[in-house]
Amino acid sequence: MRITRRESFNAAHRLFRPEWDDKKNLEVFGKCSNPRWHGHNYILYVTVNGDVDPATGFVLNLKSLSRIIRTFVVDKLDHKNINLEVDFMEGHMASTENLAIAIWKQLEKPIREQGARLHCVKLIETENNYVEYFGDKQ
Amino acid sequence: MRITRRESFNAAHRLFRPEWDDKKNLEVFGKCSNPRWHGHNYILYVTVNGDVDPATGFVLNLKSLSRIIRTFVVDKLDHKNINLEVDFMEGHMASTENLAIAIWKQLEKPIREQGARLHCVKLIETENNYVEYFGDKQ
Amino acid sequence: MRITRRESFNAAHRLFRPEWDDKKNLEVFGKCSNPRWHGHNYILYVTVNGDVDPATGFVLNLKSLSRIIRTFVVDKLDHKNINLEVDFMEGHMASTENLAIAIWKQLEKPIREQGARLHCVKLIETENNYVEYFGDKQ
Amino acid sequence: MRITRRESFNAAHRLFRPEWDDKKNLEVFGKCSNPRWHGHNYILYVTVNGDVDPATGFVLNLKSLSRIIRTFVVDKLDHKNINLEVDFMEGHMASTENLAIAIWKQLEKPIREQGARLHCVKLIETENNYVEYFGDKQ
Amino acid sequence: MRITRRESFNAAHRLFRPEWDDKKNLEVFGKCSNPRWHGHNYILYVTVNGDVDPATGFVLNLKSLSRIIRTFVVDKLDHKNINLEVDFMEGHMASTENLAIAIWKQLEKPIREQGARLHCVKLIETENNYVEYFGDKQ
Amino acid sequence: MRITRRESFNAAHRLFRPEWDDKKNLEVFGKCSNPRWHGHNYILYVTVNGDVDPATGFVLNLKSLSRIIRTFVVDKLDHKNINLEVDFMEGHMASTENLAIAIWKQLEKPIREQGARLHCVKLIETENNYVEYFGDKQ
Repeated sequence: MRITRRESFNAAHRLFRPEWDDKKNLEVFGKCSNPRWHGHNYILYVTVNGDVDPATGFVLNLKSLSRIIRTFVVDKLDHKNINLEVDFMEGHMASTENLAIAIWKQLEKPIREQGARLHCVKLIETENNYVEYFGDKQ
Repeated sequence: MRITRRESFNAAHRLFRPEWDDKKNLEVFGKCSNPRWHGHNYILYVTVNGDVDPATGFVLNLKSLSRIIRTFVVDKLDHKNINLEVDFMEGHMASTENLAIAIWKQLEKPIREQGARLHCVKLIETENNYVEYFGDKQ
Repeated sequence: MRITRRESFNAAHRLFRPEWDDKKNLEVFGKCSNPRWHGHNYILYVTVNGDVDPATGFVLNLKSLSRIIRTFVVDKLDHKNINLEVDFMEGHMASTENLAIAIWKQLEKPIREQGARLHCVKLIETENNYVEYFGDKQ
Repeated sequence: MRITRRESFNAAHRLFRPEWDDKKNLEVFGKCSNPRWHGHNYILYVTVNGDVDPATGFVLNLKSLSRIIRTFVVDKLDHKNINLEVDFMEGHMASTENLAIAIWKQLEKPIREQGARLHCVKLIETENNYVEYFGDKQ
Repeated sequence: MRITRRESFNAAHRLFRPEWDDKKNLEVFGKCSNPRWHGHNYILYVTVNGDVDPATGFVLNLKSLSRIIRTFVVDKLDHKNINLEVDFMEGHMASTENLAIAIWKQLEKPIREQGARLHCVKLIETENNYVEYFGDKQ
Repeated sequence: MRITRRESFNAAHRLFRPEWDDKKNLEVFGKCSNPRWHGHNYILYVTVNGDVDPATGFVLNLKSLSRIIRTFVVDKLDHKNINLEVDFMEGHMASTENLAIAIWKQLEKPIREQGARLHCVKLIETENNYVEYFGDKQ
């Protein structure tokens, strides 16, 4: 059984490599490399695997799952600059792929401590683009 | 090849254990335990696995699939009280997880009799919460 | 300038007239008259008219508008039985139309006290049905 | 007859008044005042009023309308910083209200030159918030 | 008070003037003039104005409204070729604008006979384009 | 890591077997067999599997993925008649299942040449129906 919780956050970011100049960054990343930033309404789906607890009928209380996602992910990203202000993204390109991996690392342990297993982090950047990360073992 | 049919139903329910008092139910289930009920517009996605029939180009005629889902699931749930009026939920907590399992049990045989295999029951309770059930073997 | 805030709530209800028997209620209201209730995920759009404050660039701070809607409407409806538990619906059929009118009456004064004018209450009951109320003067 | 074209853009912005310090800005604008920016996927609906041309069955060719919106609005906003890089927003708070007014001013003349009248600029900032501007005369 | 019902239909069409050759049609209508047709999932919102009936809490029973829309509009358009098979579109360009006007004419009388007034026909052709028609008097 | 790109196209089609008469086609395919065509706004999700390139943070540049999908799929289907005008559908029933398989065959090689692996073609025909194809090996 899998349960999924949706959360969202708004953030600014920029795709660029500091060792490349603006021209090279523009060539590779297009307008996503704009030095003065742009931003998105990110939508995050966190899917968790587990057995149904016969006492509650729940895999995991969704209030707990929502609180974990907010504490470890959304509160750190919402209305922030992903390149400059998010500790768990330091040293990583602010691509959607890398952000999904970093979110996975933030969530895996607290979800395991609730007795469930993180299955998928799905991160929607725009209505036309999203990524899904299933952890190392997939 | 997988094909998916979407159907929907509106129903009332309540999360509670009869052997617990209202205070304990409130503690565990929050406002979902309201003794006077609340309700949802549930959205149901039924995904079926199978080979494409060369004569029709179909895995399964979607009209047949829709009729099965309506007969065995939607007609029994739509505009009903899940706790009190749905035979296949008797004796089960009216959680989304348990409802998805019960819907799977309703659908598995009639879909197999059409020559296809039920793959997934996805049940959306609110825009922020959904569950997916893939059967025992997953 | 009009600004709109979306909020949502889940509730149970039933369409029926107590002076009619179940058969007559069924005839007029169909399965919406089910004596054991059904429910919906209601989506509420509140639209407010006003001038833009040059200091803030706002018609009305959306945080204030959201707080007003939650205090006077959502907190009283969410996870409730509209027929039995909502003070401002006492004595009214629990139709979407009547609910929109009652929500208007709840919101008009507190929004006016913030210096703006309530323009429209839009209430979506299902993806296929919604109502809009613009007050008496329309 | 009204026709509406949807376009979208992603941008960074910040709500703040330069003559206020960060504390005061934070008090009024909350996390939207973050000095290091945040951003959104803005969705823009442009509605135009006009008569149907009997030769084409169109109020206005949607390809022309889309081209106007892209040239005068989207190309200047997409993947930009609204506070720093958008000429028609210079000197204005980067609120959704002010952005809608500025978009109206960009579009009114080129749409009139096509023989139609701009009716409404609707700008969705998040799934919970949007503004509508109908011009001065409304 | 306004109530709105959503219905949908899938149809094929083509934009072209028979007195123009294919080259001229292509110039004006672009790929919408393809002589071998293309098609859409149209979404139709029908909005009705009226007073709330104190006995039912309804402006108009949505089942009646849905039946009117299906009988006079959807059954005649669904899975059809708008240019060749829809009696009420004969002699009209199959543009979204003209289709909305024709739908208005189909619906106005039967809705008036139910004691309500047709307010708006909104017809969505693609997620980026829609038209709204409010009748002659607007 | 999986990344997904959404694209869309509008097309006409018809379900029928030429060796069957209209009556038999109608019996099997219902109104989808209409000899004068009908059509849809198809939505296509293409999901690609791959490792994240440390230099870019990308599995695959979404601009490249979008260009591949447009060149090999969307440009050949958009505003076309699937039965008559799409080379890669010649000799195949124009069902959603067969269309998804044909899209897979169009995309597999150009995506592999970009260093990634096609994982899933999801094709939405209407809001109630979609298919997913994962290739032969699934």
